[in-house]
Amino acid sequence: MISKAMEPFMAGSSQIRAMFEEGKKMAKVYGKENVYDFSIGNPGLKPPQEVFDAIDEINHELDPLYVHGYPSNAGYESTRKAIADDLNERAGGDFFDVDHIIMSCGAAYSINMINKCIFDPGDKLVVFAPYFVEYGNWARNWGADTLVVPANEALEFDPDAEALREILVPEVKGVMLNNPNNPTGKIYSRKALDAVADVLREAEEKFGHTIYLICDEPYRELVYNDADVPFPGDYYADSLIAYSWSKSLSMPGDRIGYVAVPKCAEGHEELSQALVVAGRVLGGTNAPTIQELIVERCLKSRSDLDYYKRNAHDLYEIVSEAGLECIYPQGAFYMWIKSPVENEYEFVQAAKEERILITPGSAFAGPGWVRASFCGSNEMIHRSRESWINLGKKFFPEKHQ
Amino acid sequence: MISKAMEPFMAGSSQIRAMFEEGKKMAKVYGKENVYDFSIGNPGLKPPQEVFDAIDEINHELDPLYVHGYPSNAGYESTRKAIADDLNERAGGDFFDVDHIIMSCGAAYSINMINKCIFDPGDKLVVFAPYFVEYGNWARNWGADTLVVPANEALEFDPDAEALREILVPEVKGVMLNNPNNPTGKIYSRKALDAVADVLREAEEKFGHTIYLICDEPYRELVYNDADVPFPGDYYADSLIAYSWSKSLSMPGDRIGYVAVPKCAEGHEELSQALVVAGRVLGGTNAPTIQELIVERCLKSRSDLDYYKRNAHDLYEIVSEAGLECIYPQGAFYMWIKSPVENEYEFVQAAKEERILITPGSAFAGPGWVRASFCGSNEMIHRSRESWINLGKKFFPEKHQ
Repeated sequence: MISKAMEPFMAGSSQIRAMFEEGKKMAKVYGKENVYDFSIGNPGLKPPQEVFDAIDEINHELDPLYVHGYPSNAGYESTRKAIADDLNERAGGDFFDVDHIIMSCGAAYSINMINKCIFDPGDKLVVFAPYFVEYGNWARNWGADTLVVPANEALEFDPDAEALREILVPEVKGVMLNNPNNPTGKIYSRKALDAVADVLREAEEKFGHTIYLICDEPYRELVYNDADVPFPGDYYADSLIAYSWSKSLSMPGDRIGYVAVPKCAEGHEELSQALVVAGRVLGGTNAPTIQELIVERCLKSRSDLDYYKRNAHDLYEIVSEAGLECIYPQGAFYMWIKSPVENEYEFVQAAKEERILITPGSAFAGPGWVRASFCGSNEMIHRSRESWINLGKKFFPEKHQ
Repeated sequence: MISKAMEPFMAGSSQIRAMFEEGKKMAKVYGKENVYDFSIGNPGLKPPQEVFDAIDEINHELDPLYVHGYPSNAGYESTRKAIADDLNERAGGDFFDVDHIIMSCGAAYSINMINKCIFDPGDKLVVFAPYFVEYGNWARNWGADTLVVPANEALEFDPDAEALREILVPEVKGVMLNNPNNPTGKIYSRKALDAVADVLREAEEKFGHTIYLICDEPYRELVYNDADVPFPGDYYADSLIAYSWSKSLSMPGDRIGYVAVPKCAEGHEELSQALVVAGRVLGGTNAPTIQELIVERCLKSRSDLDYYKRNAHDLYEIVSEAGLECIYPQGAFYMWIKSPVENEYEFVQAAKEERILITPGSAFAGPGWVRASFCGSNEMIHRSRESWINLGKKFFPEKHQ
């Protein structure tokens, strides 16, 4: 009755759902305010004022036929032009014209559009562990399997170019790169990215076809301590960018993003046209129009990033005080914490007993670590202090004497 | 560089694009007001006032974290509950609970969600000609080919149950039904639908598996002369409904719709859960939130349907005056006109010379006919009169003496 092709998707889904249900159950037993949920990525931050102002303008000052009618499948020309100009300015080069920006209903949809355009059944996608598990599903939609480059702790979770070289086969048509990174909160170093680019160029030469670097960048603006996120086209020509305003404007429910195809990418004209068709035949037709018009008006606006910066700082202080080892987040809104026991599921279970919800690293192919999302309220982080300390005491009683 | 799987999609797309470019070119040469575009489906009607009021309420009175954060993948519970209740009331039965409504970014996306859940590579979809060509693309996304039941003029373009019986094979897992119909403007008769249902039940028995009737119903509310659109679950249990508010609220750019799984459909619980997963792994994640909240507030609102009714009437008068044979539209916003010459492309070309843009029936597997969309302005319809008369004179000089 349900297609066989759906089975692997259903199996993965029930795991995630089980965790979600667990959280709801705990909230009922202990009270919502006594459960510290670091498992999810729903921002506790509202959009900047400019978004509300834009909605008023769109609702009252623009022609309703323009606002609610069909735009082109690629999106409003004015929106795409404004984005291309903004990106060129920020990347410091002439990378994009209006035709190289294709609006989409978010980064996840953008990646599906890209995948549909580059993968045939039997092709392969490469991902760097730890990684967001949906990447595998989005490739499987189009018949492509996933090869995983193992996480390298010695490289502080930078992508491992040498391990990439060993894993590459002729069927690889795309490599996924998420920077700033979910789940580690890392910004990949320029050195590591240059090494990855060298290996990919070598493989393109050897296998005689293009290998696209699919750059998933919803966290591009969420960086702390003035860290620099290298622009993909700068270090590897055959890059495609999937973007979403979910984080930078705190509007994940709105579903608005784009695919950007830099002019340096092989076949950029044909690929841009194919992406427009892919966006339509996948059923999205076009990105939602109100949201296109919002982002066109808010390209320079940002959520209050100091909010995340403060959360990163405060959670780091508390987790460190508890005696746990973790990486100080450089970007995104995740903290990557080393499990004090090899099997991190035990640690996740112990955390749950303290009413702390965190995600096991194995869910990201990063066993031995856990992810704590700090996009919720600062107040919850402070309320959770005692639970974190109690958790630390369980594993490191000697540090708490 | 671009996947082989994308090739058939690209080929189909360039045909449509060519027509679109032709229209733009003509507007430049003759002036926009002198080109009569009956080729497209972009409503010339703004949304009802309730939509604008809802946007104000959503923007100023609701919690921004609720409005712009992630809802569940299936959509807001309150939205889905309101839709289920409204549908039960209109269908006159207890067909849906909240879990059987899954929000989506429009009917096209809904159909892709359904197709992903029911088709494996090698399976087949059946469509009734004339039909919207994207149906084939949306099935091909998931490896399913399309079988076409030929149009039957003797049945006045009702679906031909006898021809369906002859075409059915064990690989058929879904049958697409679009009612009210694009491109014919027909509302399928209850008698024809009952006959289709009989054949499908017989085939389910014979082949030993479920055959879902995928009911694409964006035009459900666009009916004239108080015609009745039979509710799918009433005549065939294994029905799935794909809906969009693009037409009923005149907001096609907003991308908001749903899949509804009636309780009478085989495996409705499991299928509802699979649809939620399909919606997410296709990359849409969730339907856009502002739009979910709009439709929740506007379930009883409608665009000014008298506008389309007047357009249908006025265009029918003009086309008949020109001496052309056509079907008086019962629903949707399309008029199906018989080509006065066997090869309707000649007729489309002659129309173009009069600056009238219409779509050849072959684009819908309905050769010998053409489609005129009357969703544009009433004023344009009246301005086009002389051109229609001139077109009629070319083919029926005897009628114009």
